[in-house]
Amino acid sequence: MIKVRVPATSANLGPGFDSMGLALGLYNYVTAEETDGGLVIDILDESRKFLAKDERNLVYKSMKAVFEKVGYSVKGLHLTLENNIRVTRGLGSSSAGIVSGLVAANAMSGSQLSQEELLFLAAELEGHADNVTPALLGGFTISVKQRNQIRYVKTELKDDLRFAAFIPDFYLQTKKARGILPHSVSMRDAVYNTGHSALLAASIMTGKYENIRTAVGDKLHQRYRKRLVPKMDEMFRNCYEKGALGVYLSGAGPTIVAIVHRDNTEFEINMKQVLQQKMPDWELQMLSADNTGAVIL
Amino acid sequence: MIKVRVPATSANLGPGFDSMGLALGLYNYVTAEETDGGLVIDILDESRKFLAKDERNLVYKSMKAVFEKVGYSVKGLHLTLENNIRVTRGLGSSSAGIVSGLVAANAMSGSQLSQEELLFLAAELEGHADNVTPALLGGFTISVKQRNQIRYVKTELKDDLRFAAFIPDFYLQTKKARGILPHSVSMRDAVYNTGHSALLAASIMTGKYENIRTAVGDKLHQRYRKRLVPKMDEMFRNCYEKGALGVYLSGAGPTIVAIVHRDNTEFEINMKQVLQQKMPDWELQMLSADNTGAVIL
Repeated sequence: MIKVRVPATSANLGPGFDSMGLALGLYNYVTAEETDGGLVIDILDESRKFLAKDERNLVYKSMKAVFEKVGYSVKGLHLTLENNIRVTRGLGSSSAGIVSGLVAANAMSGSQLSQEELLFLAAELEGHADNVTPALLGGFTISVKQRNQIRYVKTELKDDLRFAAFIPDFYLQTKKARGILPHSVSMRDAVYNTGHSALLAASIMTGKYENIRTAVGDKLHQRYRKRLVPKMDEMFRNCYEKGALGVYLSGAGPTIVAIVHRDNTEFEINMKQVLQQKMPDWELQMLSADNTGAVIL
Repeated sequence: MIKVRVPATSANLGPGFDSMGLALGLYNYVTAEETDGGLVIDILDESRKFLAKDERNLVYKSMKAVFEKVGYSVKGLHLTLENNIRVTRGLGSSSAGIVSGLVAANAMSGSQLSQEELLFLAAELEGHADNVTPALLGGFTISVKQRNQIRYVKTELKDDLRFAAFIPDFYLQTKKARGILPHSVSMRDAVYNTGHSALLAASIMTGKYENIRTAVGDKLHQRYRKRLVPKMDEMFRNCYEKGALGVYLSGAGPTIVAIVHRDNTEFEINMKQVLQQKMPDWELQMLSADNTGAVIL
């Protein structure tokens, strides 16, 4: 029996569209057991209402990808999923599903694949690497695909940052959030994001947090996606008023993440008051960074 | 009498268009002396053929900008310039002129301006900050302008990198090199540069040099500018064949810079042979990083 823990992830961080991500201290668990036949998937939480419990299940499909690659066969499987990451909210639930399946199947079949191979496989299954890299490795990551390889840098997030995830009570399909983007943009906007993403990476890595508010600036996707996320501007404004270092749409949304300094101890209570008074359909989860990524427990 | 040394700089580094830069161990020197009247500018090297020796001189104009800002007046000035950075080649000669003027004038008028103020003034005079930030501060820098401030990160470049500057015997006006760029680009290309610039910054900062070849990938400017730089593709190919970690067009060109590991001791001699045989119009200068920036000697 193999039990895997995999973190939630938050991608894009404003300018770092499709390349930047970080892992959060909020986890899904997968327990996988070989059986004599058949596929049984138990889901212990309310995500059972949304997720397939047969061969279309993402954790199962990801396990199968590993088994096929390394030529390992199982008679049957019993999977138990305990999902704390809300589905289709922009916190990497699908990447968590993929990565947990890959890591569980690799362990089950004798750990024949390296981290690099698992990462590439995960990015292939997900379509891009921005969430799967931190889900697998933890920390703050930048990754781009280059032919049959993911080129990435992972650095650890310092303990002085907190991540306030504002999760609304509606979901947003990544496909829809991508469909709303234009096919071409001005050179000016492209250059803007290019500079800001590099500045953001360097500012997080060096702890120059006073840059973050400028550095999370984005002109490529958030301005279009805010049509799909009512109250997005209001949430950004409120977070900044309460001292957030930076605010961005997490992944394709609709979750909004505020980066907050640990010393801003009032942020959580202040924002909970704001939500209660003005935005009752949003839930706040205060999270720490995860620097470990997927682990076999 | 004040003597200032300021380094050459190389901007863009492929994807980091208008934001990324680094300082090189190749220097211009400015000696400034208050006199009883008039302006005398001596230029000790061949750049005297191209540079103004009157009030249109860039070092002088930059000094004047500081004097006006802090309300300092001089009766006369005697400037002596010793320029080792070739003019209009993409190695930051104009930024060196601006920064040396600002630093000299600030010292002369009692150091009333902070580094941050000098940086902003330099970026205003130059029009963008990618070269002036490393010219002033040294090292590897990412900078973006935000209202009346330059937001930047500077990190030191490690001693294990060398920068091979290939300088052709023609110059390229930045204005012309900018005019050739399109006003709009595909979202795909914008996202490509956004990811690659962040990856490059993180790879240089963490010493993950095996990423550099991928990370210097650019889709926003080099493909257009290569029409203005004959043999650019051939130079890139030759540098990679001889083991360069990454190759890019320096600033607006025409200089091409190859990032080379210190241990690749054959690179210089190998490329000098290539130049002799195939590209006699290009000169190679092997440079180290400068982590100091502008200094008063």
